[in-house]
Amino acid sequence: MNSPLKIAIAGLGTVGGGVVKALTSRHAALAAQAGRGIEIVAVSARDTKKKRDFEVGNWVADPMALASGDADVVVELIGGEEGVARKLVEAALENGKHVVTANKALLAKHGKRLAELAEKNNLQLKFEAAVAGGIPVVSILREALIAHGVDAVKGILNGTCNYILTEMEVSGRGFAEVLKDAQAKGYAEADPTLDIGGGDTAHKLALLSSLAFGTAPDLANMKVEGIEQITAADIGFASEFGFRIKLLGVARQTSSGIDQRVHLAMVRARTPLANVDGAANGVVVDAGEAGSFFFSGRGAGEAPTASAVVSDIVEIARGSFGPVFGRPAASLKTLVPADSGAALSAYYLRFEVLDVPGVLAEIAGRLSEANVSIESMIQRGRAPGESVAIVMITHESPQYAVERALKAIAASDKVRARPCMIPMEAA
Amino acid sequence: MNSPLKIAIAGLGTVGGGVVKALTSRHAALAAQAGRGIEIVAVSARDTKKKRDFEVGNWVADPMALASGDADVVVELIGGEEGVARKLVEAALENGKHVVTANKALLAKHGKRLAELAEKNNLQLKFEAAVAGGIPVVSILREALIAHGVDAVKGILNGTCNYILTEMEVSGRGFAEVLKDAQAKGYAEADPTLDIGGGDTAHKLALLSSLAFGTAPDLANMKVEGIEQITAADIGFASEFGFRIKLLGVARQTSSGIDQRVHLAMVRARTPLANVDGAANGVVVDAGEAGSFFFSGRGAGEAPTASAVVSDIVEIARGSFGPVFGRPAASLKTLVPADSGAALSAYYLRFEVLDVPGVLAEIAGRLSEANVSIESMIQRGRAPGESVAIVMITHESPQYAVERALKAIAASDKVRARPCMIPMEAA
Repeated sequence: MNSPLKIAIAGLGTVGGGVVKALTSRHAALAAQAGRGIEIVAVSARDTKKKRDFEVGNWVADPMALASGDADVVVELIGGEEGVARKLVEAALENGKHVVTANKALLAKHGKRLAELAEKNNLQLKFEAAVAGGIPVVSILREALIAHGVDAVKGILNGTCNYILTEMEVSGRGFAEVLKDAQAKGYAEADPTLDIGGGDTAHKLALLSSLAFGTAPDLANMKVEGIEQITAADIGFASEFGFRIKLLGVARQTSSGIDQRVHLAMVRARTPLANVDGAANGVVVDAGEAGSFFFSGRGAGEAPTASAVVSDIVEIARGSFGPVFGRPAASLKTLVPADSGAALSAYYLRFEVLDVPGVLAEIAGRLSEANVSIESMIQRGRAPGESVAIVMITHESPQYAVERALKAIAASDKVRARPCMIPMEAA
Repeated sequence: MNSPLKIAIAGLGTVGGGVVKALTSRHAALAAQAGRGIEIVAVSARDTKKKRDFEVGNWVADPMALASGDADVVVELIGGEEGVARKLVEAALENGKHVVTANKALLAKHGKRLAELAEKNNLQLKFEAAVAGGIPVVSILREALIAHGVDAVKGILNGTCNYILTEMEVSGRGFAEVLKDAQAKGYAEADPTLDIGGGDTAHKLALLSSLAFGTAPDLANMKVEGIEQITAADIGFASEFGFRIKLLGVARQTSSGIDQRVHLAMVRARTPLANVDGAANGVVVDAGEAGSFFFSGRGAGEAPTASAVVSDIVEIARGSFGPVFGRPAASLKTLVPADSGAALSAYYLRFEVLDVPGVLAEIAGRLSEANVSIESMIQRGRAPGESVAIVMITHESPQYAVERALKAIAASDKVRARPCMIPMEAA
C-alpha cells in the first residue's frame, strides 16, 4: 500500500469534529477505499480548551502554520470569505498542498482565482461540503451530468429556512415565533441573517451555477431575497391552491443569459422539491436531453457535512484529477446575466384591501391594463369597512408586467399593505 | 492540451447511438471538461446496414478486433453475461485498454474477476450506465457516501416494472392488459421476462450491494420475485391503506449478514420512493450517521444512459483512479447472507375466501397461533356463498411466522386462492 496521506485540519467545530471522528473510527475501511491510510498530522482551533468528544494530537496554535507543515492536504473549516480562511487556503496552495474546504462564502467570492492558483500548481481544491452537506451535488455537476449540458439547477439549499417554512406550515404559527423556536432548538443561529436573508443560499447557488454553466462564480449578478416577509396566511393560501412555499436558489440558462435568483417560490405539491421537509436539502438538475434528476438528504450538521469532506479527502488519496470547477479555471467565462424582468412565470399575489365595493374591480383592472390575466382567486371573509385578503394566481406573465401592475395597485387608497408577490417554480 | 483519448464502441443500439451523438455534438464542451479531446476511432455493430440518425466512420466487422486496435478505451454496449460481450471485455483488459460498459448481467456474474483483471493491469473498468441510467448512483456509492458506511441501499431500478405498476394504479387495469400496452408503446420488450421477472433489478442490486458493502457481487444469495402476480385489487387496497406497491431491490446489512431481495413492497405514500412514477428510477441510500439520501431520474433510454457512459469516459480522460468496486477487487469479501426468515416486517395480506360464517375467525386464529397480530383490516362486499377478499395489515412480525400462518390458512377449504403477501418497506 502507498504511504499514508497526511491531513491537517483547521477548525474543530461541528464539522471538523465530525471529520476527525470519521477518519479515526473508520480508519481501516477508508484506507481500503482510498488505497492508502489517511493520517491527521496536525489540527488547529481557536479554542484549544473546549471540551470535545474526540481526541486528537499535535495541536498547532497558529492555523497558518498548517500551510507550511508536512501535511499533503489542508482541510479548511474556519469559514468566512476573507481573513484567516482565505490566507490559509492561499498559503496552502502556494506551498503545494491540496485543499479541502466547506467554505462557500470564500469560493463564491474568490473561487476563480483560487482555482487558478490550485491548477497552476497541479493541486486539488475540493469543496463538496460547501453545498448541500452530504448530497454529492458538486461531484454530480462536475463529473456525472455533463454529457448533455445543464439547462437549470434549482434547490433548497438552506436547512434553517426550510425548517422554518415547514414548521410554519405544520403549526400555523408566524415567522417570528417559529424563528425563535428554531434558535432555541439549534436549527437557527443567534444571528440568523445569513440564513434567513438568503445569503447562504446565494453562496451555494453561485457555486452550483459555476459548475453547471462553466462561468466564474458570480454573486453580483444574482437577485437575492430571504424568507422574512412570509406570513402564515400565505402558506395557508398556497396550500389551498395546491402549492408549498419554499426558499429556492435557481440558476437557469436562458436565451438572454444566465438567470440566478434566490427567493421564495410556490412549488406544486407532490413535486420532488415540494416534499423536501424540515432541515433537509434537495436539488433538481435539468440535464438537457437526459432529463431531470433530483437529489435529497441532510444538508448540514456534523455527520452529513463530514461525509462530504471525507469523500473529498479520499478522492485526493486516490489521485483524483480534474479541474476545480469542472473546466480549467482560466477558461471559466464571465457570466452574462439574463433579462430577468422578461422571464415568464405564473405568480401568487396577495392584497390586503379595505372591504369596500369596487376594490376587486380596481385590482382586476390594473392587472388587465398590464396584460396580466388571472387564473384563480380566493376572497375570504367579509368585514365591511375593514381589511381583508384577496389572493390570486395569475397565468404566465413577464415579471416586469406583474411588477408594473402591483405598483399601480399599491398606490390605491383601498390597499392597506405592500402586495405580496411569489412566483411559481416548476420543480 | 493532452493528446485525445481514443474510443472504440461495440454495439450501436439505442445507448451506443446516444453516446456517439453526445460525443459528436458536444465535442468541444466535453474536451474542455475532460482536459483533452475524445475521438471515436472505431465502431462495431451487428447490423451494419441499419439506418441510423448519426454518422460515424471506421466500421469494424468483428467487435473482437476493437480489443486489439489503437483505442485507449473500449465501450462495451453489446450486453449479455457471456458470449461476445464477456470475451471483448476480457480481451480489452488483457490488451491494456480501459473498459466502459453498461452490462449489468456481465458484472453481476463476473464482476470480481473482471475487476481483478483490470486492477492487475492498472486499468479502469467503469459501469455507471449499468445501474439506474443517468442517476450517478455507482459513483455516489463508490466515492461520495463512504465516510460512515452504508446500512442499506434500496431502489426502484427497473423502469418497465415501475411503468406497469404506475399505469395499473392510474387506470385500474389488470397486469396483462397494461403489459401489452407497455409493449406497444416500447416501454416493455417483446420478451419482457428479464424485466418483469425481477432479473434485471437483481443484476443491478448485486452491483449496488457490492459497492455498498465491499462484497463480491452475488446473485446466488438473493431472493428474487417479479411483478407478474400483482392484481389491480392489491394496488387499490394498498392505496386505501395509504401505500403504493413498488418493485424494490433492497440490500441491507443485518446482524446476521447481508439481506438481498427483489420483490414487490408496500411503500408509504409521500415517501420518496413512493413518488417515483412511470419509467423513472429512484434509489435510497441509508448512509449511517450521515442519514438517508435519495436520488431519482430517468433510469433508461438513449440520453440518460449515454449520459452515464460519457461521464465514465470523461473520468478516464481526466485520469480517474480508484478500484472498480470501491475497494481493491482482491479484497472484496464473500457475501454472508442474512437469515431473511427472521427479518421483522409488517405485511399486507389478501385472502380470497368463501363468504361463509367463521372464515374471518379461522384466518385470525391461524395468524394468532403464529403470533402474528393484525393492525387493520378491510372486508369489502358481501356475497354469501361466493368469493370475497379479506385484506389485512399486520404488525411487525418475522417473515417465517407469517409464512407459517399463510400455509395453514391456504390449506383451509374456505380459502379460494393462494394468499397474497407483500412486505412493507420503510422508504
